[in-house]
Amino acid sequence: MTILSSEPTSTFLRACHGLPTDYTPIWLMRQAGRYMAEYRAIRAQHSMLDVINTPELAAEVTLQPIKAFGFDAAIIFADILPPLIGMGLNLEFVKGEGPVIYNPLQGPADVAALQTPPAAETMPATLEAIKLVVAELGQKTPLIGFAGAPFTLASYAIEGGGSKVYAKAKALMYREPKAWHMLMEKLVTVQVDYLLEQAKAGAAVLQLFDSWAGLALGVDDYIEFVQPHNRRLFVEIAAAGVPTINFSTGTGAYLDEVAACGGAVVGVDWRVRLDEAWEMIGWQRPIQGNLDPIALLTGWDQLKARVDVVLERAARGKAQGGVSHIFNLGHGILPNTPIENVQRLVEYVHEQTS
Amino acid sequence: MTILSSEPTSTFLRACHGLPTDYTPIWLMRQAGRYMAEYRAIRAQHSMLDVINTPELAAEVTLQPIKAFGFDAAIIFADILPPLIGMGLNLEFVKGEGPVIYNPLQGPADVAALQTPPAAETMPATLEAIKLVVAELGQKTPLIGFAGAPFTLASYAIEGGGSKVYAKAKALMYREPKAWHMLMEKLVTVQVDYLLEQAKAGAAVLQLFDSWAGLALGVDDYIEFVQPHNRRLFVEIAAAGVPTINFSTGTGAYLDEVAACGGAVVGVDWRVRLDEAWEMIGWQRPIQGNLDPIALLTGWDQLKARVDVVLERAARGKAQGGVSHIFNLGHGILPNTPIENVQRLVEYVHEQTS
Repeated sequence: MTILSSEPTSTFLRACHGLPTDYTPIWLMRQAGRYMAEYRAIRAQHSMLDVINTPELAAEVTLQPIKAFGFDAAIIFADILPPLIGMGLNLEFVKGEGPVIYNPLQGPADVAALQTPPAAETMPATLEAIKLVVAELGQKTPLIGFAGAPFTLASYAIEGGGSKVYAKAKALMYREPKAWHMLMEKLVTVQVDYLLEQAKAGAAVLQLFDSWAGLALGVDDYIEFVQPHNRRLFVEIAAAGVPTINFSTGTGAYLDEVAACGGAVVGVDWRVRLDEAWEMIGWQRPIQGNLDPIALLTGWDQLKARVDVVLERAARGKAQGGVSHIFNLGHGILPNTPIENVQRLVEYVHEQTS
Repeated sequence: MTILSSEPTSTFLRACHGLPTDYTPIWLMRQAGRYMAEYRAIRAQHSMLDVINTPELAAEVTLQPIKAFGFDAAIIFADILPPLIGMGLNLEFVKGEGPVIYNPLQGPADVAALQTPPAAETMPATLEAIKLVVAELGQKTPLIGFAGAPFTLASYAIEGGGSKVYAKAKALMYREPKAWHMLMEKLVTVQVDYLLEQAKAGAAVLQLFDSWAGLALGVDDYIEFVQPHNRRLFVEIAAAGVPTINFSTGTGAYLDEVAACGGAVVGVDWRVRLDEAWEMIGWQRPIQGNLDPIALLTGWDQLKARVDVVLERAARGKAQGGVSHIFNLGHGILPNTPIENVQRLVEYVHEQTS
C-alpha cells in the first residue's frame, strides 16, 4: 500500500494503490477497437497511423468505450510501435498483414545507428491526445498511458514484423549480446521519456506491455537479457509519481521474475490461475486480469461461468491477503466480440463485487 | 524402469526404458529437413506431400541425417497433418504459407461428418516407408514413429491453418463442448490406430507431438478439454508394447499435468530449466530435451555454452535420482541451421557424457 498525501477517489486508482474499493474496477485491453461499430466507422475513413497521429481522432476513439460501457479506466488510443519510427525505423501498418518494418535491424551497426529522440518531438500527437482526453474525462475516470516493453519492441525491430519463433531476434541476442544490450538500453531510454511525458500530459497510470518475452524466452534468458532493462525502466518511470502496471503474456512459469522487474500492479494473461499467479507475484501487489478474451465469443452462460472463476480466484486471493484485483482480460479484446457481452460483463463484475 | 524380457541394446531404446546407458543419446526434432542440402535436393523436385506419399523418398530422407550425423535414433519423415485427409479434410501444403485446410470444421455438423478410417487404408505410404527404413537401419538405430496430438490437430482442422490466438478453435471448444469432445475422440481413435500400425510396421518408439496446447490453453482448460483424450491415447497405444514419448511446448507451468497424461518419456521445450522440469515430471521418468533451436544459429562457443547448461542440468537431475536423459532440441531444428553445428553438437554430447 502506497502512502499518499491525499487518497485517490476513483475506484481504479485506489485499486492501483492497493487501497480498498467499493467494487472491483474493470477495463479491457484494446477496449478502443474493432469490436465497436463507432470505431470501425472512424477506421473506415482513416488509417491506423492517421488516427494515432490526429489528436482529436485518437481522443474520440479513446472515449468511445467509456461512453458505451462505463469502464473504470480509459487507455489512450495508440500503438506500441510508433516510437520506433522516431528511432529510425520505417514502419507501416499494412492491411491484412499488420505492422511491417521495411528496414529491420540486422546487426550491431544498425543498432548503433538508432536514434533516441525525445517523445515531445516524435510522439506529440499522442501526448496531445492525452491532454484532450483528460480534459474531457475529469477525475472520475483515470486515463492509462502505455508503452511497449523493450523486448517486444526489439523483436519487432529485428524481425521486421510479427514472428512465430523470433529466430532473428534471438539469434542476434545470442550472437551479439553487446549489441542486444545496447538496443535494449536505447529502447528503455526512449520508452522512459515517452512514459514520463505521458504522465506529464495527464496519464494517471502507466502500463508496460510485454506481449512477447514469455513466448520467446525461457526464464534464464529472461533474467539475462530482459530483466535488467525492464527493471531500469520501472525505476526510472517512478519519477512520474503515478502507479505503473507490468503486463506480460506467456510468463506463467516465472511470474516471480517478471514481478521482480517492478510495477505497482502486475497484469497476468489468461493461461494462469489468478490466485496462484497472485501468490507468485506477492499478495501485497495488486493484480490485473485475467479472463480469456475468447470467452467473450461465447453465450452469456458460458461467459458468466468463466467470469465467476476469475472472481472466485480473486476472492480466494483476497482471503489470503491479496490487496486489490483489477478485472481485465488476459490479452486484448478480439475484433469479433459481440458488444452485448462487453456490456453485460462490465455490469456483472460491478454487481458481483459491490 | 520397465521390466523387459530381454534388455534392449541400443542406447536410445535403453534410455527410453530408463536403463543405464554408456552415453547420452541424441536426436533432433525435424532432423530430416531443410537445413540439409541432400533434403533440399529432393524437395526441389518433389512437393512435401509427394515425399510423404512415396515410401522410397520418405525412407531416403529419413536416413539422410543418420548417415550424415550418426544420430542415436531416426524419426520417420512424415507430417502430423496428413491423417486429417482421410478424415475428410482437404489439406494442402502451400509454398511460403504452410499447411492450408480448405474446408475447416465450422461446427458440430462438420465434426459429426468426420470419418475415422483405418491408417492401413489412409496412410499406407508412411507405413511402407517405416518398413523400408527399419530394413535398412537394423537394430543399432531405432526408428521413431509419431503422430500429432489431438488438440494440435483439432486446432488445425478448425482454424484451417496456423493461428496466433486459436480463436476459432477455442470458441468452438467453449461454445460447443460436446462437439469438441466428439472431435477429440475421433482424432484419438484415428491416431491410436495410426500409431499402433506404425509400431507394427517396425517403429521402435512412438512420439506424440502437442505443439499447440500449451500456447493456446491455461491449465484448467488443459485438464478439461485435452487431458482425458491424451490420457486415453497413451493408455491405448500401450498395446504396441514400445516406449512412448509425450512432447509438448509452452506447458512449462503445468508439466505435471502433461506428464499425468502418460508417455514413458516426457519431452520438454527450451523454455524450462531441464532439472526443474524433471522434478515436476518425476525423477523416475526419462526426460527428453531441451536445447533452444536458435542456439544452433550461433557460433560454436555460444552454442557450446548452451549445450553445457543442458548437460549440467541433466547431471543435476540424475544426481537427484533422474533416470535417463535423451538430448534433443526443445522444438524442431530451423531450416537455416549450419550443418557444422549439428555435427559438432552430436560429437560433443557423446564425448561429454561417455
